[in-house]
Amino acid sequence: MADTLIKVDLSQSAYTNESVHNRWHPDIPMVAWVKPGDDFIVETYDWTGGFIKNDDSADDVRDIDLSIVHFLSGPIGVKGAEPGDLLVVDLLDIGAKKESEWGFNGFFSKQNGGGFLTDHFPEAQKSIWDFKGMFTTSRHVPNVRYAGLIHPGLIGCLPSKELLATWNEREVGLIGTNPTRVPPLANPPFGPTAHMGRLGGDAKAKAAAEGARTVPPREHGGNCDIKDLSRGSKIYFPVYVDGGGLSMGDLHFSQGDGEITFCGAIEMAGWVHLKVEVIKDGMSKYGIKTPIFKPSPMTPNYKDYLIFEGISVDESGKQHYLDVNVAYRQACLNAIEYMKKFGYSGAQAYSILGTAPVQGHISGVVDIPNSCATLWLPTEIFDFDVNPTAAGPQKLVTPGITMPLSPDL
Amino acid sequence: MADTLIKVDLSQSAYTNESVHNRWHPDIPMVAWVKPGDDFIVETYDWTGGFIKNDDSADDVRDIDLSIVHFLSGPIGVKGAEPGDLLVVDLLDIGAKKESEWGFNGFFSKQNGGGFLTDHFPEAQKSIWDFKGMFTTSRHVPNVRYAGLIHPGLIGCLPSKELLATWNEREVGLIGTNPTRVPPLANPPFGPTAHMGRLGGDAKAKAAAEGARTVPPREHGGNCDIKDLSRGSKIYFPVYVDGGGLSMGDLHFSQGDGEITFCGAIEMAGWVHLKVEVIKDGMSKYGIKTPIFKPSPMTPNYKDYLIFEGISVDESGKQHYLDVNVAYRQACLNAIEYMKKFGYSGAQAYSILGTAPVQGHISGVVDIPNSCATLWLPTEIFDFDVNPTAAGPQKLVTPGITMPLSPDL
Amino acid sequence: MADTLIKVDLSQSAYTNESVHNRWHPDIPMVAWVKPGDDFIVETYDWTGGFIKNDDSADDVRDIDLSIVHFLSGPIGVKGAEPGDLLVVDLLDIGAKKESEWGFNGFFSKQNGGGFLTDHFPEAQKSIWDFKGMFTTSRHVPNVRYAGLIHPGLIGCLPSKELLATWNEREVGLIGTNPTRVPPLANPPFGPTAHMGRLGGDAKAKAAAEGARTVPPREHGGNCDIKDLSRGSKIYFPVYVDGGGLSMGDLHFSQGDGEITFCGAIEMAGWVHLKVEVIKDGMSKYGIKTPIFKPSPMTPNYKDYLIFEGISVDESGKQHYLDVNVAYRQACLNAIEYMKKFGYSGAQAYSILGTAPVQGHISGVVDIPNSCATLWLPTEIFDFDVNPTAAGPQKLVTPGITMPLSPDL
Amino acid sequence: MADTLIKVDLSQSAYTNESVHNRWHPDIPMVAWVKPGDDFIVETYDWTGGFIKNDDSADDVRDIDLSIVHFLSGPIGVKGAEPGDLLVVDLLDIGAKKESEWGFNGFFSKQNGGGFLTDHFPEAQKSIWDFKGMFTTSRHVPNVRYAGLIHPGLIGCLPSKELLATWNEREVGLIGTNPTRVPPLANPPFGPTAHMGRLGGDAKAKAAAEGARTVPPREHGGNCDIKDLSRGSKIYFPVYVDGGGLSMGDLHFSQGDGEITFCGAIEMAGWVHLKVEVIKDGMSKYGIKTPIFKPSPMTPNYKDYLIFEGISVDESGKQHYLDVNVAYRQACLNAIEYMKKFGYSGAQAYSILGTAPVQGHISGVVDIPNSCATLWLPTEIFDFDVNPTAAGPQKLVTPGITMPLSPDL
Repeated sequence: MADTLIKVDLSQSAYTNESVHNRWHPDIPMVAWVKPGDDFIVETYDWTGGFIKNDDSADDVRDIDLSIVHFLSGPIGVKGAEPGDLLVVDLLDIGAKKESEWGFNGFFSKQNGGGFLTDHFPEAQKSIWDFKGMFTTSRHVPNVRYAGLIHPGLIGCLPSKELLATWNEREVGLIGTNPTRVPPLANPPFGPTAHMGRLGGDAKAKAAAEGARTVPPREHGGNCDIKDLSRGSKIYFPVYVDGGGLSMGDLHFSQGDGEITFCGAIEMAGWVHLKVEVIKDGMSKYGIKTPIFKPSPMTPNYKDYLIFEGISVDESGKQHYLDVNVAYRQACLNAIEYMKKFGYSGAQAYSILGTAPVQGHISGVVDIPNSCATLWLPTEIFDFDVNPTAAGPQKLVTPGITMPLSPDL
Repeated sequence: MADTLIKVDLSQSAYTNESVHNRWHPDIPMVAWVKPGDDFIVETYDWTGGFIKNDDSADDVRDIDLSIVHFLSGPIGVKGAEPGDLLVVDLLDIGAKKESEWGFNGFFSKQNGGGFLTDHFPEAQKSIWDFKGMFTTSRHVPNVRYAGLIHPGLIGCLPSKELLATWNEREVGLIGTNPTRVPPLANPPFGPTAHMGRLGGDAKAKAAAEGARTVPPREHGGNCDIKDLSRGSKIYFPVYVDGGGLSMGDLHFSQGDGEITFCGAIEMAGWVHLKVEVIKDGMSKYGIKTPIFKPSPMTPNYKDYLIFEGISVDESGKQHYLDVNVAYRQACLNAIEYMKKFGYSGAQAYSILGTAPVQGHISGVVDIPNSCATLWLPTEIFDFDVNPTAAGPQKLVTPGITMPLSPDL
Repeated sequence: MADTLIKVDLSQSAYTNESVHNRWHPDIPMVAWVKPGDDFIVETYDWTGGFIKNDDSADDVRDIDLSIVHFLSGPIGVKGAEPGDLLVVDLLDIGAKKESEWGFNGFFSKQNGGGFLTDHFPEAQKSIWDFKGMFTTSRHVPNVRYAGLIHPGLIGCLPSKELLATWNEREVGLIGTNPTRVPPLANPPFGPTAHMGRLGGDAKAKAAAEGARTVPPREHGGNCDIKDLSRGSKIYFPVYVDGGGLSMGDLHFSQGDGEITFCGAIEMAGWVHLKVEVIKDGMSKYGIKTPIFKPSPMTPNYKDYLIFEGISVDESGKQHYLDVNVAYRQACLNAIEYMKKFGYSGAQAYSILGTAPVQGHISGVVDIPNSCATLWLPTEIFDFDVNPTAAGPQKLVTPGITMPLSPDL
Repeated sequence: MADTLIKVDLSQSAYTNESVHNRWHPDIPMVAWVKPGDDFIVETYDWTGGFIKNDDSADDVRDIDLSIVHFLSGPIGVKGAEPGDLLVVDLLDIGAKKESEWGFNGFFSKQNGGGFLTDHFPEAQKSIWDFKGMFTTSRHVPNVRYAGLIHPGLIGCLPSKELLATWNEREVGLIGTNPTRVPPLANPPFGPTAHMGRLGGDAKAKAAAEGARTVPPREHGGNCDIKDLSRGSKIYFPVYVDGGGLSMGDLHFSQGDGEITFCGAIEMAGWVHLKVEVIKDGMSKYGIKTPIFKPSPMTPNYKDYLIFEGISVDESGKQHYLDVNVAYRQACLNAIEYMKKFGYSGAQAYSILGTAPVQGHISGVVDIPNSCATLWLPTEIFDFDVNPTAAGPQKLVTPGITMPLSPDL
């Protein structure tokens, strides 16, 4: 039995746990040190630190202060790891905490960050997903069941001071191009809700004022939300500070490519069993400045898909130039319209795209002026036949089930 | 043995073949009619109509007049198909013409359309790929071999007059925003090089002046360049005119997601064996306005991937807002840098990304300000171990092999 | 969190646990009742009830009294299930007990039951396998690592009195054809070591004298040792007594087709999370007299195999008539010889075939006089290249590692 | 375009083609020589040389003289290959002859060789399968369609004189144990119908009297009928004579594990595109005395199976000792009973097991006295839902379709 290096108590505020932090900064002290070759377990809060509840109201999704996220467990130092090395991380296993075998998915209000389809779903909604062994089902989204493709939404090493400065400069610069936008273009450092782990006093205040927010993925990995970074995968992370400083959190039981619902995948508290190794000077040996990884030998082997196309003409008919975002949005909207014909509400269909292991492919990016994106919906997750037939769709979705909605106040 | 409805003679100009056209227009006459349930074979030119040669010079890639593409075989009418129906097409098989068991891949000069990485590869280059049964290898790109994921890059039904008008309006509008851009934002109708099939005289001249260019994917499918629309897949196409008017061409022996090299995948002349059915009123029954499809039960089952991440910070360090194009470009550049460490030239690595069955996933699109895209490179296509190890890469690529390059004149 | 219906304490003898039994008999009382639709957890001993230890001696494998096996958890009654129904069991998840994250594999002495290759490996040997998350490695068998294809070796419903009588009659009859054979042809009922769950007194004595041994698979399923009956699979069991009476045990972390080492797969104590449903009158509706099942959507997706053939000519050169057993034995021996060329001992190679997810296919059974069987060895489990090359094999196995062996006394 | 080294004319008797033979003998002259690294095409007859016709009578299956089979194309010599080497054969592609896009499956009369289930299907029956691109359907077996897993049933190198003598000795010895059995235990050399390729006169007569029949698989490979030796696979054959002498035939469009119907898979005439290499002294380098192979990267990826179990108790209730043949027979019979509930005749169900890519696994071979075998039936081949449900099966098979049957005269 591997040691559990970091424990979390879901009944306590994440702010009281000194092995947790919610900003990226090189000054955050290591909470533990391991050696190359070690394997160990790290427990994590859900990304909101327990703010979202297992209930039938979306008020918490509407009301959450997003400056508190994400609560990460770490950083963990690896002896001998130095800037320029690669930290090789095996995700040996990942699971939910036994006392918390459920997760949530939701859409933020457009005022509070929105999501990929926020113009179509501008209000807060939530669905709860129960875990039964390898599988999940929801009392709010009927007639689907998925095998979990469990993964950390967020994992990476601490940035160096220089890298942190680069992040802040470029992101604050972007904000400056439209500082009053709702939702904002990016999130600047924000001290008041920062949790800097074991750091206290002036050192904490200084670091909190500089610490990068955890929302975006960056060069170090971070909040990549890559569904395939799943249990069994192997990741090669760039190292920027002595010891690396590996942190992680934002566990997902299952997610579709894009994490289009933003709040988020099927979000859960849980644990990660990891093993670490080091490749000395690996960044230059392999020309790596962003993590690379290898997929797991064990993933859900769904094979029968319905594939929806989208092109970069938006839903108003406007022509965009080779814009994959627009194209993927159309593919998503096309899939939602299709599922609605079987009896799902739009919100339920959107939730399925956010939570099921759907694939989003960049299919064509050179055929001016239209990009082509494809959304792959696995048909095996439905408990009825979702394929097109000459007879047309039967409204087979169990009636009377709705997703909680909380309008803006 | 199914009937061959359309034949092409590779020794003759595509312009002389009346069963071929290179624009989309509802007035192009059907070249054959079939019944629902029929299966039949259609031969096609390569997309350039034979302009690119099996030789060791990229002059043809540099010099091609792109207003001539794509040469499509059709349109074929299906009895009983009416606007609002879905035309169900089974791609029963696809292959190269026996007298032409090779294909080409290239990068256009930036002046002539460029490609996804045209700023890094601004000059015309070409590689030739030989087919040996199910597999392809290139004399210009050593140490890789792929099983073909053969597919038509371009397939779809004729647009109605209304749909055609919509296309022209929105694309010409886009061009108008920057009419002197190189490469252009889109391609307007262009009569002089139009081939309108059996249409002649004034009718041809009128249709040629209106006919939509074949470059972009659109609502009807068209030039989707989706690598997974492969032999064995089943596609549901919207029907806009009586009979549907199915045309196809631009066959690819193999392609990576995105077709990033633009010229293009591994391009070939060949044949398609199809079967057609009709779902009456299928567009409204299923809410479909863009094709949907189901993948083949038989595709290369590569399972071991190296996965590269990219975020929407460009190679100059500039921050973009949730831009998947930028993110995918970074993932591609990261993969190229990695492959160069094993001895490939940048151009060879770029060719591999354009021609091998690499996957491009839209991994995260909501974590402001950075999108995350991933590029999946199958390791099984290399005849050496391309995985990272503590020892670092060995320069294992056979030395002395280069890709033809033709600088702009 | 599902309820744990049966708990086992690995520090206590299985004989003291009244929710456990080691014979099949309809009189064994149900230890719990559930309803169709319920999901619940069942803990189990390893098949030997803890006799085999995590150490470096094979004495326990040599000395075990096999009349004590298998210790099964159950029987569990399902309300409403009646003879003729099908009991539908979802294996929602399976795992090792946290305090026991290891398993064993061994070969019995030929005098004590032997194994599939007992003439080649006639003495007791053992290897210990540690679990690190999804993966296992052994300190006795170097350079291999597998993702666990976890499954119960033994699961099924209680037989009716009539079915039990049929079993005893036919098996005792077989024993009678060669009653002094070593190892025996079959195992008759044997009261002294029987554990009949909650049954006591005369009722126990009577049932113990009749109870079928748990070694063979039979019509009800039982000791099928099917590696693909893994977590995530769904099984349809015939019901013979009111309530069904579902029992299970003999958990395996990983096994090859055939469980050729007999002692056994990678054997472990653990738990099973199940869900049950009933199909009324399902046996006659579907003509089912033996369980059928559907595989899991999540299994190790090893794809690259070395496939060894065997024909029904034995190692002495003797011709057998269409005998798949002989053919599969040859395929196994061929694989062992191959692995020895890379530095494995024969015993280590045999252990790999018993524990890794190798496939054994019945490839040809009609081409007189030779059957053809194939053994599929996944190459991805090795940490070196095990494929044939022109250079010949390199002896790459870490030297100096041996498997414990305990000669007969 | 690769050269076609051997051509066959389906309108001519195979006996007139000097590049064909139907016995194994080292004196059969090479019909062509190639060099290591060469790729080339070989055409083949179907295994009966065209005796079985595309019609609706099973008379030909009943009346065939099986001493004429199998008609093989070859032998082909590879320069430099010597006894003890491995001949590495890449099956680059395989297809049907364009003028013959169909195949047959049948059951021989028990008097004429029978099949795996001959006691249940003792009379001659036949089904015809049409090829439509990658797929096949039958006018005699409704509601199923398979993607072809095309392979040569028979391929291997010429035996040496010593190996041939070993074969004849052991097989004639087996026949001697029951020389009047119907069907026979094995087939001895038989000169009158032998076709020895280019050999003529006394040399032919002598070789014909000694030549091994082509029915069984043997050390050299031969009639392995392994469905996974499909297009895209790579095989390592032992070499016994100078040049190797590679011959092949008995092409199958699709087959289930075991080729249980014996006559046979979906049998067809066609062509094979091969590439050859040599590993010098490979037999001793790798301890290989029987072919090994690696599967194709491209096969039908059916993933949803119904899995039937069988144990070594036969249909009369008799107990056998660890007999995989009996167990697999029971699994097959169980599957047939299941399919009959959906409306198939027994013969149609048997044909499906013989022709579809079903898997037969040796699941347990050590749990005395019962072996366990499993038959994996892919559900995706049916055009209706073949899974068990609470409602019971619907008789969904198209009524009124029967398989031709020709009773013994």
